[in-house]
Amino acid sequence: MIRIAVDAMGGDFGPEPIVTGVIEALKEYKFHAVLVGDSNAIKHYIPKQFLTYVSFCESSEVISMEDGATDAFKRKECSIYKATELLRSKEVDAIVSAGHSGATMSLATLRVGRIDGVLRPAIATLMPNTNDSSTLVLDVGANVDCKAEHLFQFAIMGEAYAKEVLNRKHPKLGLLSNGEEKSKGNEVSKEAFAMVSKLPSFKGNIEGNHIFDGSIDVVVCDGFIGNILLKTSEGVADAIGKIIKKHVKKSPFAMAGSVLMNKVFKLLKKQVSYDEYGGAPLLGVNGCVIISHGKSNTKAIKNAIFQAINFANSNINNTIKIEISKYKTNE
Amino acid sequence: MIRIAVDAMGGDFGPEPIVTGVIEALKEYKFHAVLVGDSNAIKHYIPKQFLTYVSFCESSEVISMEDGATDAFKRKECSIYKATELLRSKEVDAIVSAGHSGATMSLATLRVGRIDGVLRPAIATLMPNTNDSSTLVLDVGANVDCKAEHLFQFAIMGEAYAKEVLNRKHPKLGLLSNGEEKSKGNEVSKEAFAMVSKLPSFKGNIEGNHIFDGSIDVVVCDGFIGNILLKTSEGVADAIGKIIKKHVKKSPFAMAGSVLMNKVFKLLKKQVSYDEYGGAPLLGVNGCVIISHGKSNTKAIKNAIFQAINFANSNINNTIKIEISKYKTNE
Repeated sequence: MIRIAVDAMGGDFGPEPIVTGVIEALKEYKFHAVLVGDSNAIKHYIPKQFLTYVSFCESSEVISMEDGATDAFKRKECSIYKATELLRSKEVDAIVSAGHSGATMSLATLRVGRIDGVLRPAIATLMPNTNDSSTLVLDVGANVDCKAEHLFQFAIMGEAYAKEVLNRKHPKLGLLSNGEEKSKGNEVSKEAFAMVSKLPSFKGNIEGNHIFDGSIDVVVCDGFIGNILLKTSEGVADAIGKIIKKHVKKSPFAMAGSVLMNKVFKLLKKQVSYDEYGGAPLLGVNGCVIISHGKSNTKAIKNAIFQAINFANSNINNTIKIEISKYKTNE
Repeated sequence: MIRIAVDAMGGDFGPEPIVTGVIEALKEYKFHAVLVGDSNAIKHYIPKQFLTYVSFCESSEVISMEDGATDAFKRKECSIYKATELLRSKEVDAIVSAGHSGATMSLATLRVGRIDGVLRPAIATLMPNTNDSSTLVLDVGANVDCKAEHLFQFAIMGEAYAKEVLNRKHPKLGLLSNGEEKSKGNEVSKEAFAMVSKLPSFKGNIEGNHIFDGSIDVVVCDGFIGNILLKTSEGVADAIGKIIKKHVKKSPFAMAGSVLMNKVFKLLKKQVSYDEYGGAPLLGVNGCVIISHGKSNTKAIKNAIFQAINFANSNINNTIKIEISKYKTNE
């Protein structure tokens, strides 16, 4: 049975949505959850019939958003530190954390360690597309300054995730750039283009709009740009919603219309909501680490757990190791 | 009377939308238009009563999208080359081009020349925000690899445009980053942060979503990121439209609702459409250069003309020169 350590304390809303998310996941799939945190604050959210699938790892502290990522190394009583140690000692197969993402990343990278040959782990995230599917984008924040070889490795890791975890047999991979032509790009992306061209799944440079049109499965960029595009997308979706609401308020016809369209707006919201995707896997570390949004609700945590299960059930880390070593030898 | 040279041939849809855009602008404001292109292909779009405001500059060739930006220097018969020369010789006050943007930029930078002290001109574009206003973003494509001092100059030029052309007395300026904290950013943006901090309008780092929430007037980034965020924004808006349409088709209630909401959707489309903004000024060159979308319709060209008029009527280039020299001395 898969064992998942969940940082029960790190989220912005305390343990409740996290623990109820774990319970909702348990209703659909049986795994063993190790809840890391103050068991007295957690226990009462767990219905009796699920107690057999749950154990506790006591932790008295939490890394707050004000703390630096490296503070985590000194604070061994923190929930995320303890969760990571469980992965390090292989007492669990995966961890899910809605806490300080920088701390999670640093601890996972340095305490759990990188896969052989991986220079830098990357955070990958799924974004909705109009093909009723999703596009994997990486890196979205782990590495703000990247060299071409880092982008190349992100491409290998993204391809492996698409194949092994998302079950896409022939994923299409694109390098994010300022135009589709080979000649487009900045210094780093142009150098990366030549490297990524070695991968059979590489379809060339892609532009920002291709993330959402379903033409590509995996998008590679550095973490600075990845974070900006993530926030930009949220900002655009949010602005459109606000503009619609503002105009609707001015017209009784439009108000009636919006009531009739309510279901459509709900479906749209569902489709673009990060709750549906759950969390972002940190690719390149020796284990499965799922980083969830600090504002995760029950559903987001439930989906993050499913991501962890799919990841842990897959062969992805071995594939990454093999692929990375293959291109290392060829160089 | 302001004189504007318009590349009548460079757009994706030939001279019609461009010339009719000029006429629509002339209906609202009197200026002198120099239409650069094949006058035989242009003349019949011009109603007699407007002929007095129009002259022609014959040009037999057009730079196509397949041509490289530097090809333009060798092709002196091209419409954009001739339009740029008119600005260089001060026969016109401004140019508007919906043609090859790279060629326009190269010709403007090297033939018209940069403002004293400006290292690199930048393309600025207006994006809608939920404050019923717009946010100026630069650079959106002129410079894919930037140093901190380039970003600093973009900040100065953007601030000047906001004040002098957009009439915002106290513009708020932000540096695009992966977080609001001062410690966030990549190497270049962190170095730029220290420089941009000298500007009184600087409000700190901003994230992608702030472009659309009306909290900031001017957003500074490099041209690689600027282009990606532009395309990403278009992609998100497009995807949301498509998802809504798809769901609406499945339900008669929603269909009726969408009819009642038709006006709202039209207002939204208008608000987020680039037609409303017309074109993107190239800041930092010795003159006024407005770069329009290749797919510009009549309205987009009309608005680009108004941008050129506002620019030409302003004191922006002098302000840029003074501000750049001020900070040069201080360094």
